Amino acid sequence: MAESPITPRAKDFATWYQDVVLQGDMAEPAEIVKGCMVIKPNGYAVWEVLQRELDQRFKATGHQNVYLPLLIPESFLKKEAEHVEGFAPELAVVTIAGGKKLEEPYVIRPTSETIVGHFFSKWIQSYRDLPMLINQWANVLRWELRTRMFLRTTEFLWQEGHTAHSSHEEALEEVVRMLHVYGDVAENVMAMPVIRGVKSRAEKFAGALQSYSIEAMMQNGLALQAGTSHDLGQNFGKAFDVQFQSKEGKLEYVWQTSWGVSTRLIGGLIMTHSDDKGLVLPPKVAPRKGVIVPIYRKEEERGPVMEAAEKLALSIGAHVDRRDGQTPGAKFFHWERQGVPVVIEIGPRDLAAGNVVLKRRDTGTKEVIPQDTLVAKFNETLDAMQTDLFAKARQRLADNTVTANSLEEVRAILDDVTAEKGGGKFVMAHLKDDPANDAMLKEFRATVRNIPLEDHYDGPGKCILTGEKVPQRVVIAKAY
Amino acid sequence: MAESPITPRAKDFATWYQDVVLQGDMAEPAEIVKGCMVIKPNGYAVWEVLQRELDQRFKATGHQNVYLPLLIPESFLKKEAEHVEGFAPELAVVTIAGGKKLEEPYVIRPTSETIVGHFFSKWIQSYRDLPMLINQWANVLRWELRTRMFLRTTEFLWQEGHTAHSSHEEALEEVVRMLHVYGDVAENVMAMPVIRGVKSRAEKFAGALQSYSIEAMMQNGLALQAGTSHDLGQNFGKAFDVQFQSKEGKLEYVWQTSWGVSTRLIGGLIMTHSDDKGLVLPPKVAPRKGVIVPIYRKEEERGPVMEAAEKLALSIGAHVDRRDGQTPGAKFFHWERQGVPVVIEIGPRDLAAGNVVLKRRDTGTKEVIPQDTLVAKFNETLDAMQTDLFAKARQRLADNTVTANSLEEVRAILDDVTAEKGGGKFVMAHLKDDPANDAMLKEFRATVRNIPLEDHYDGPGKCILTGEKVPQRVVIAKAY
Repeated sequence: MAESPITPRAKDFATWYQDVVLQGDMAEPAEIVKGCMVIKPNGYAVWEVLQRELDQRFKATGHQNVYLPLLIPESFLKKEAEHVEGFAPELAVVTIAGGKKLEEPYVIRPTSETIVGHFFSKWIQSYRDLPMLINQWANVLRWELRTRMFLRTTEFLWQEGHTAHSSHEEALEEVVRMLHVYGDVAENVMAMPVIRGVKSRAEKFAGALQSYSIEAMMQNGLALQAGTSHDLGQNFGKAFDVQFQSKEGKLEYVWQTSWGVSTRLIGGLIMTHSDDKGLVLPPKVAPRKGVIVPIYRKEEERGPVMEAAEKLALSIGAHVDRRDGQTPGAKFFHWERQGVPVVIEIGPRDLAAGNVVLKRRDTGTKEVIPQDTLVAKFNETLDAMQTDLFAKARQRLADNTVTANSLEEVRAILDDVTAEKGGGKFVMAHLKDDPANDAMLKEFRATVRNIPLEDHYDGPGKCILTGEKVPQRVVIAKAY
Repeated sequence: MAESPITPRAKDFATWYQDVVLQGDMAEPAEIVKGCMVIKPNGYAVWEVLQRELDQRFKATGHQNVYLPLLIPESFLKKEAEHVEGFAPELAVVTIAGGKKLEEPYVIRPTSETIVGHFFSKWIQSYRDLPMLINQWANVLRWELRTRMFLRTTEFLWQEGHTAHSSHEEALEEVVRMLHVYGDVAENVMAMPVIRGVKSRAEKFAGALQSYSIEAMMQNGLALQAGTSHDLGQNFGKAFDVQFQSKEGKLEYVWQTSWGVSTRLIGGLIMTHSDDKGLVLPPKVAPRKGVIVPIYRKEEERGPVMEAAEKLALSIGAHVDRRDGQTPGAKFFHWERQGVPVVIEIGPRDLAAGNVVLKRRDTGTKEVIPQDTLVAKFNETLDAMQTDLFAKARQRLADNTVTANSLEEVRAILDDVTAEKGGGKFVMAHLKDDPANDAMLKEFRATVRNIPLEDHYDGPGKCILTGEKVPQRVVIAKAY
């Protein structure tokens, strides 16, 4: 695909985002299928890194992967009242299969709590079968009206963990454990700081007692819900009759959890770190951490330069850009847009001096270094870049988090914010967790993002709407 | 789930297979969704190993992973005449989405050649864009009437490679390259010998010029098509207008290939190696290569035995079965059915003597060895088991491959074979590649499996049906 200019963030953040996604070979709209995208090679490779990082943490915490059917009998969705209400408007329905009209239609899974409920009721009989800890990597479908690549697409890829426990206490421990796994990957792999907290009642998952989330701040100040972990209580246990015999010999309903992150994470990654030159990938999620661009003009220079490039590439596990018929300039431009953390150039002059040139993607810094220091310098640069990107994002979050003590203050701060123009803030305010209060924020299109697990602010205070005393401030923001 | 007896192979092969799948925690029928299964933890873990082995080979041969939409506009399927004829009867159709009847229904992908055709036409303009080498890991749906877990299910997991080339010659090289990648994984990872060959015209993929396959022999002598690689010629290029400007400046249609293996491989794995005690997994595909079962009766024995078990487990990367309330006997039984290659037991007497007991799954051999030789002996046993399982399967293939020189001979050999009773053979016969001849074999439910790439037999001969001279014998067998 031809490379076009990238719209600057300051001009139009939403268009900038789309340009970065397209030019970074991350994804493109599928068009022919409403609201879908194609995940392209660079985007899918980032997803593979995230999958690996998450999956090893899921396994280390005792979960096993399984695969459940894509199709769900329509009647299943209706067994949990809140759940069907939440998902019914977004369903894609299969009514014909094998050339015949189906007696009972199937829906394509928007999430799998119902089918998990069905199988848990088959698999769980006794407390000895608990906890049951499973996860699946899968595609799901939700018929969304307004879509944006990675952030909200009709079909998306995700993982969904589903667990069953013998007590509410143990289930809650699981919910919080997995929230922290997500926080760990977001911060320590993706270099994306997040606020861990409880969703307000108005914003919880359809069918849950309580939902937890990690919320990140994008460069335009908008919030992105990057992962959720739900305490399902006994709602699905009762709807699907998942009972177990307790140690005491009593028949009880299981306590369930579910938790998920999706390809949406990649949207968050992009909007946290990328710049007006294109994609910036933190080294730990970059499929290619380094690329070597050999430079030569005359044919007799080619051999020695390529030889040195291949040797250096082996020493640091980098890719050599061997493409003929592309100028070095075009190659630099290409890898910059793909977000490669470190690009190394080597030409005849460097070769003669025993040097290479090392360019760091986020700062644009160019350094000439002796070849024999490359391994150390390369790893050091990757570490520094990872640390610096996180620090920068954390500073941005701190700088754009403000407190407000009245609805008018909240409104004044958030009123003019749009995804395109930016200027968004996280507003910390005392607000009682009541759907009626959340509704008041709709007027200026803000929502309660979550009630942070750790209260970094000033403790209890009076609700800005009702005056009632509440234990801590909540995060109010405009969000994707 | 309670463990039940496994039906012996000799009594009923099909029931034996189902028992092994269920008792080995590999899968179970989903029932609520016609012809679907749930892939359970042990089955999914095997799939993860196969994915890893395949994926690294795809990447090493220059392919990149992408993800394409699950839904395909119905009209796309109709653009390639043979393709729609082949797949139309098996489609699941989405007619309602987001609460509304769709103007144009979508089908759930049965395979993605059509959607790939659409995107290739957007992505490919010039010979510089070629070859284009992509792969996707995905679920697909084909509404099948008769299903068996792993072997044929309505929904299954697979990978589908799709490539575009500037010449037919280069495309054919790709087709054969990927066939050999499949053969390599089948034989050198799964220890499942296969015959690489060309499908007869009657059996080729709907829309291909020619299809290649790997065919394996199950323990009942039936054939299993374990992977296919297709030369699509310019069929999809023309249907979806995928043209490129050649080096000479001419506009030409691309030459495409596609190739896939699926969770069906796991069915082949099971029917190649497992026995009347349950699952047998070759070490290279076993998610857990070794498990240590600690044995103790008195409480004071527990500490020292567990300590030794944990230490030994670390040295060989094995899992310790720490479950309380399960007898050692129940634990051995459990891991045997899960196909764990090597189970190690250690009790107070072994501890006193400085020994451990090592049991090999396929042969049932038990060896008492000094603890300090465990690492070497463990690895040696895994290697030997891998080699022996392959040799045994290869011998079975050789022993059950026979030649026939007339239709009557073919019939006599294959007439009484059923999946349940076994007795199947691969019959090598001279047969002209003509759908009319394939049709003659239908009478006794046999098919031409493929025309082997290497003619191991006796060269040219007369077609058993038409008397015409043909270059080599083909494989005729009953198949899954």
